[in-house]
Amino acid sequence: MTNSKETDIRVAEIFGPTIQGEGVLIGLPTVFVRTGGCDYRCSWCDSLHAVDPEYRDQWLAMSTDAVWTKILELSGNTPVTVSLSGGNPAIQPFGDLIRRGRGAGYRFALETQGSVSKDWFAELDVLVLSPKPPSSGMETDWAAFDTCLHKAQGKPETVLKIVVFDETDYAYAKEAAARYPLLPVYLQPGNHTPPPADDDGAAVDQDGLMEKMLWLVDKVTQDRWFEARVLPQLHVLLWGNKRGV
Amino acid sequence: MTNSKETDIRVAEIFGPTIQGEGVLIGLPTVFVRTGGCDYRCSWCDSLHAVDPEYRDQWLAMSTDAVWTKILELSGNTPVTVSLSGGNPAIQPFGDLIRRGRGAGYRFALETQGSVSKDWFAELDVLVLSPKPPSSGMETDWAAFDTCLHKAQGKPETVLKIVVFDETDYAYAKEAAARYPLLPVYLQPGNHTPPPADDDGAAVDQDGLMEKMLWLVDKVTQDRWFEARVLPQLHVLLWGNKRGV
Repeated sequence: MTNSKETDIRVAEIFGPTIQGEGVLIGLPTVFVRTGGCDYRCSWCDSLHAVDPEYRDQWLAMSTDAVWTKILELSGNTPVTVSLSGGNPAIQPFGDLIRRGRGAGYRFALETQGSVSKDWFAELDVLVLSPKPPSSGMETDWAAFDTCLHKAQGKPETVLKIVVFDETDYAYAKEAAARYPLLPVYLQPGNHTPPPADDDGAAVDQDGLMEKMLWLVDKVTQDRWFEARVLPQLHVLLWGNKRGV
Repeated sequence: MTNSKETDIRVAEIFGPTIQGEGVLIGLPTVFVRTGGCDYRCSWCDSLHAVDPEYRDQWLAMSTDAVWTKILELSGNTPVTVSLSGGNPAIQPFGDLIRRGRGAGYRFALETQGSVSKDWFAELDVLVLSPKPPSSGMETDWAAFDTCLHKAQGKPETVLKIVVFDETDYAYAKEAAARYPLLPVYLQPGNHTPPPADDDGAAVDQDGLMEKMLWLVDKVTQDRWFEARVLPQLHVLLWGNKRGV
């Protein structure tokens, strides 16, 4: 991470194509650019290797050129959806990459908690805003969140994705959804067995995840919240905590 | 099934709300109206209790009124998405139900193989056309399929969903997608352990299903078919072959 320029993108990993495992693009072949660094530190973060500064020596400062070349290589020059994730990818300078990629027919989706906004949000194809519920230990700055929507200018397809671990998180999700009645809502049961930053082979409690999923389905249907979609992390069901798939 | 009128709907089961397990509406709370009777007899049918005439004495001839009352009861009078499935629901008289339900804010999705078309297709919110690949033992009548699209008049959100068991099915899926380049494509690994018509407790080969899913993901990504979504039957992962969930 030495000698990085302001235009460099801090990259924890670039991988794919594999299918998107979550939310509105679930099942869609995707190349993932996972950036390093985050302004949040969620208690249950499942991408600590891209968040904890202790791992910053594993992050690469890459130019837009270098990231784009890697995307072309992974996709065999065939336009694909690129997911910008993290960490918080909103703190990176992605404007040039998005313009370049879209010019070549690629699509860009960003997933962010909504704490930091950029003008290039308006150039995305999909904006996934994922405010963090109380169980994360983080507090949502709704003014900052509103600015994300403002910067997006209604141009990308924009959705809410909220992780739910418990009743308190569920109540938060309902409030967030009520605050933005025009945004489609995706609920996702939390992974209570996230991988430690240095061990992507750590076991996942698949039975526990299934139980949480069933609990959330019951919750939503009994509550008659019929607009909310409930989806598991499909990649965790398929591959556990393994990275790069 | 005696004394049924032309306006009656042959119903195998009505259940929900639970989440949609497949395709474009995956994860969305849904009430399911599964109709009895089918013009196809796919070798791997996973809803034989709604297809095999041997079970027709378990189907109810219900009036639109009766079906609508049941939907209202299950949904607690709260507008929800209703999935019309089967069997082949396209052979039933659903026009009045759809008009009545949509007037009350309900949404209607139809899933059909595309062999039979109706004028009321244009009144649906979502039309899932699921042509059956060679492994089914059925032959696709593409002229009949085209008529489904014609009757829909471009009004509902229309998608292709294709079950894939093997390489031959995969080739068929690619041809079908090429034939309708404007329709989003959802690929679904086939369940090689479907329930017998009289035993919804029959075990599912979950490991085998996972393997098929991984095979299909590899296939699509190596083939750079980046527009196709690959989704498992989520309800089978969650509940096995059990009915009514």
